[in-house]
Amino acid sequence: MADPAANATPPPAETPAAAPAAGVGEEGGISKKAAKKAEAKAKKEAEKARRAAERAAAAAASSSAAQAEDLAKDNYGQETHETKLSPDVIEINLKTLGEEHVGKTVELRAWLQNARMQGAKMAFVELREEGNWSIQGVVAANPEGTPVSRQMVKWVGAINPESFVVVEAKVQKPLEPVKSCRVSNYELHITKCFVHAAAPNVLGMTLAAANRPIANFSDEEPPVEQEVEKLSIAGEGPGIPAATMLTHLDNIVMHKRSAVQQAIADIRAEMKELYRSYLRSHGFKEFEPPCLIGAASEGGANVFRLPYFEKDAYLAQSPQFYKQIEIAGGRKRVFSIGPVFRAENSNTPRHMTEFTGLDMEMEIKKDYHEVVYMLEGVLLYMFREIKERCRDEIALVRSVYPAEEFLLPEPGKEVRLTFAEGQKLLREEGPEEFRNVSDDEDMSTPQEKALGAIIRKKYNTDFYVLDKFPEGARPFYAKEDPTNRKVTNAYDLFMRGQEICSGGQRINDPVELEARIRTKGIDPASPGIKEYVDIFRQAGVPAHGGGGIGLDRVVAWYLNLPSVHLAAFYPRTPKRLLP
Amino acid sequence: MADPAANATPPPAETPAAAPAAGVGEEGGISKKAAKKAEAKAKKEAEKARRAAERAAAAAASSSAAQAEDLAKDNYGQETHETKLSPDVIEINLKTLGEEHVGKTVELRAWLQNARMQGAKMAFVELREEGNWSIQGVVAANPEGTPVSRQMVKWVGAINPESFVVVEAKVQKPLEPVKSCRVSNYELHITKCFVHAAAPNVLGMTLAAANRPIANFSDEEPPVEQEVEKLSIAGEGPGIPAATMLTHLDNIVMHKRSAVQQAIADIRAEMKELYRSYLRSHGFKEFEPPCLIGAASEGGANVFRLPYFEKDAYLAQSPQFYKQIEIAGGRKRVFSIGPVFRAENSNTPRHMTEFTGLDMEMEIKKDYHEVVYMLEGVLLYMFREIKERCRDEIALVRSVYPAEEFLLPEPGKEVRLTFAEGQKLLREEGPEEFRNVSDDEDMSTPQEKALGAIIRKKYNTDFYVLDKFPEGARPFYAKEDPTNRKVTNAYDLFMRGQEICSGGQRINDPVELEARIRTKGIDPASPGIKEYVDIFRQAGVPAHGGGGIGLDRVVAWYLNLPSVHLAAFYPRTPKRLLP
Repeated sequence: MADPAANATPPPAETPAAAPAAGVGEEGGISKKAAKKAEAKAKKEAEKARRAAERAAAAAASSSAAQAEDLAKDNYGQETHETKLSPDVIEINLKTLGEEHVGKTVELRAWLQNARMQGAKMAFVELREEGNWSIQGVVAANPEGTPVSRQMVKWVGAINPESFVVVEAKVQKPLEPVKSCRVSNYELHITKCFVHAAAPNVLGMTLAAANRPIANFSDEEPPVEQEVEKLSIAGEGPGIPAATMLTHLDNIVMHKRSAVQQAIADIRAEMKELYRSYLRSHGFKEFEPPCLIGAASEGGANVFRLPYFEKDAYLAQSPQFYKQIEIAGGRKRVFSIGPVFRAENSNTPRHMTEFTGLDMEMEIKKDYHEVVYMLEGVLLYMFREIKERCRDEIALVRSVYPAEEFLLPEPGKEVRLTFAEGQKLLREEGPEEFRNVSDDEDMSTPQEKALGAIIRKKYNTDFYVLDKFPEGARPFYAKEDPTNRKVTNAYDLFMRGQEICSGGQRINDPVELEARIRTKGIDPASPGIKEYVDIFRQAGVPAHGGGGIGLDRVVAWYLNLPSVHLAAFYPRTPKRLLP
Repeated sequence: MADPAANATPPPAETPAAAPAAGVGEEGGISKKAAKKAEAKAKKEAEKARRAAERAAAAAASSSAAQAEDLAKDNYGQETHETKLSPDVIEINLKTLGEEHVGKTVELRAWLQNARMQGAKMAFVELREEGNWSIQGVVAANPEGTPVSRQMVKWVGAINPESFVVVEAKVQKPLEPVKSCRVSNYELHITKCFVHAAAPNVLGMTLAAANRPIANFSDEEPPVEQEVEKLSIAGEGPGIPAATMLTHLDNIVMHKRSAVQQAIADIRAEMKELYRSYLRSHGFKEFEPPCLIGAASEGGANVFRLPYFEKDAYLAQSPQFYKQIEIAGGRKRVFSIGPVFRAENSNTPRHMTEFTGLDMEMEIKKDYHEVVYMLEGVLLYMFREIKERCRDEIALVRSVYPAEEFLLPEPGKEVRLTFAEGQKLLREEGPEEFRNVSDDEDMSTPQEKALGAIIRKKYNTDFYVLDKFPEGARPFYAKEDPTNRKVTNAYDLFMRGQEICSGGQRINDPVELEARIRTKGIDPASPGIKEYVDIFRQAGVPAHGGGGIGLDRVVAWYLNLPSVHLAAFYPRTPKRLLP
């Protein structure tokens, strides 16, 4: 595919196409978090020695190879648009490689994640496809020098890790299973090897480092002494320390090539799909709320503002207004999946300025608990199904970020407490400092976490609903409980003691709504508020309620990741807009 | 559901709960676009007479009703949270109403779209659910006054159209099919009727007007004489003129209640679902690119900029950079569905400042036509499937916005022309003014449309591909054809002569890319560009290509709507950010 004019390296017969990469890319598996420093140093020394030996072997190969004519010169080198493989070659991918391929000549396009010489006549490579599928390849020079010569072996053994290559090979069964590769029952005996796109001599972050748990999620530049450590991460070997989130994002390509990040991305995509398919099967229609809005919702705090031709625009903090228009506009049930924005200067592992909202809104027939049960239902469905669909991916993530199983209630034993019941539990069974929490004030994050721990112990679940939040803790649009005006028909849903969904019944009567707005000290004629109330004046709107789920948090807390940033494709924080 | 304290109207026994609505909301069916003015006037007169008769009937009912005690007073009025229906009532929805319900007492929660008195003892109402499902309801006073009294009949007959009501009724078969309702084989004999949420006495736009084709898509305020016409639209009757887009958006609730808008929304949601399911079944992974980015892509023209803490952020014009990172990061095939932004001051029916992009990117194995065929494949799948899945919705839209069938190529006869072949067709078979079009310059919109007409006539298709665009017409990242450097491996896909998808193979070699950037007169070190090139320096990236489809345009051009704004949920234009 690559253009001949674009070749960065001269043809292989003249000089080695790629500089020897000094053993970079040895994937060190996943070592324990607390590997002692001394141990690491020892390993580093051993590694140094190993590399020196490899270099010696390569040098030996080089000197003898130079003497012979290269009979394999058409079987390796930089790929050009004229590069040809054998006509009968079978294209394979590693996921579906099977017995029927043994003995066959196949083509594989993959990343070379590791290459090493074994003496002067043989090199081993590891080839990888999406989803951590890897296989061992062997290149061995034969006495006739065709199809594989010593020069070819040397060249392949020196390909920079994370180059993309095209190989032609025979599939064989190895003498014993190859432990270092996901495909352990087959290996490839390489007869042709072309570099399609070369990696640099030194990677900004190795795959091994990318697969380690992230050490530090701060967006601040690390101090100078940490900077040194940061650079050393670019080295390799099993003892290397974990990289910081900064290093990961500065090396986004390698970050994304790590098996753990691909597993998290797969889980995230599947969570989204489960949400969508469940709601669709329950009569919900997908719609798309706008991001650009003409008035700041909820008073303008934490809203991004931008110049928009002759006026100002704002970025939507929530699609709630639009979900409600859909209901007012004659839909029974709607959902949306899309970005929402918060201009909050919070630099914590729980916050981002842009995240994905899973929102829904529905007509209420008899009682707002219809909405609570729907939200609970869709989340339970997501949690139960993801465990089946992404079993391997979850196990992989856990191997890097160990976590306790996410406990789910047995069907019929879902935990639904009122806010007051939650506060009572906190007072009676929580830590000393929460002995006096009030039923009328919202909970703090530490209170929520403490309650989560009590509920886990008491009810054996990490997922539960808190209902009937106090009036003072909810915005003007929250419908009061007609039988007890101190509380609202509003609820939060929690995972591991952390809120992942907030919602409630909305006031659907414009007179009641305007009165509530005044009670809250807001001017009903102010921008954003007026347009909101007017919706209910345009025509009769049925009772309705809904909720918004933060997808990033659902993924992060389900897996118990150390930061929600890890669950995002491109985390956005007050300090980070790139890549 | 409604709160008792929030009742806007006093209990029915004391005064009529809702002021008589003077026949507002008579749904006039869908009349032909070219109804003559004279005809319209005549109809208006007839309508006036009819309403006068109705008012007289209502007045008669009122005077006689006032004399009798109201034995049905608990069977109607404003719904409160204490309102009760009979315990054995069966909840129904109109879509699934069937023979098994005949003779049963049922509950329906619906919009009352029309109410009219028939003498003093009987009223007819039309009740509607989502998706234009409507049924006729009859309220007839019986001699005993229970369950239905004359007062109740009068009250029901005066409910404001577009109020949301709860009725208890017996399902019966009408003497002859009710032509004005989608459910024509059943009618409801109402025994209880409560207003759950009242509509105003005068609607900003009637349902009948909302269901007419939109007259004018300008975002400018109409001149004063048009303003008068705009107001008259709020009237009713089959002869009323169509409303402007401004009126529709100012009355978003009624706009969305129209059958035609709900049908368009259903088609849009299904198009999106078809795109997603096709790509998922072809091994594509969904990901989410950010909207907030740190550098303006493609030089900063037409990009929204906003203050972002201590720096500036931009709104993404396309997810292309991020799609390519996903491929560089080890994914074979990715897609995304989400908002993209253009700060272009274009006030045309083809443009919006925010729209939904259906994007995809994939690794290329042998040839970039793999990507062309995938894009063609997913669109053909969408077009073929939508015709089956949304047959009723498409017919409904066509009844308001008549359009010629969207012609598809027979399988195996897809039309794929090179740009040069397209230009040749234009020169040889196009209108006079295009006799000299060049193979090296991009096409104008009129040229595209003329070519679309030629291709429709010649090949009997409204959907086709133009490939191999000239180098000068494509951005710096477009891969040149290695066998002919004057053209690129880039393509557009067209519907009815209008571009709906643009894409191509991208340069994946950083050296080649940087050289191309310089050739285009861009500084490779400039913000946004540097980050882009660096991606290909981080590690070897396989050949890849993709494309971006505009969902709004696909829906609008498939249905041949007069404006893309009609296909959007909340169209955003330089002058319009609300609602």
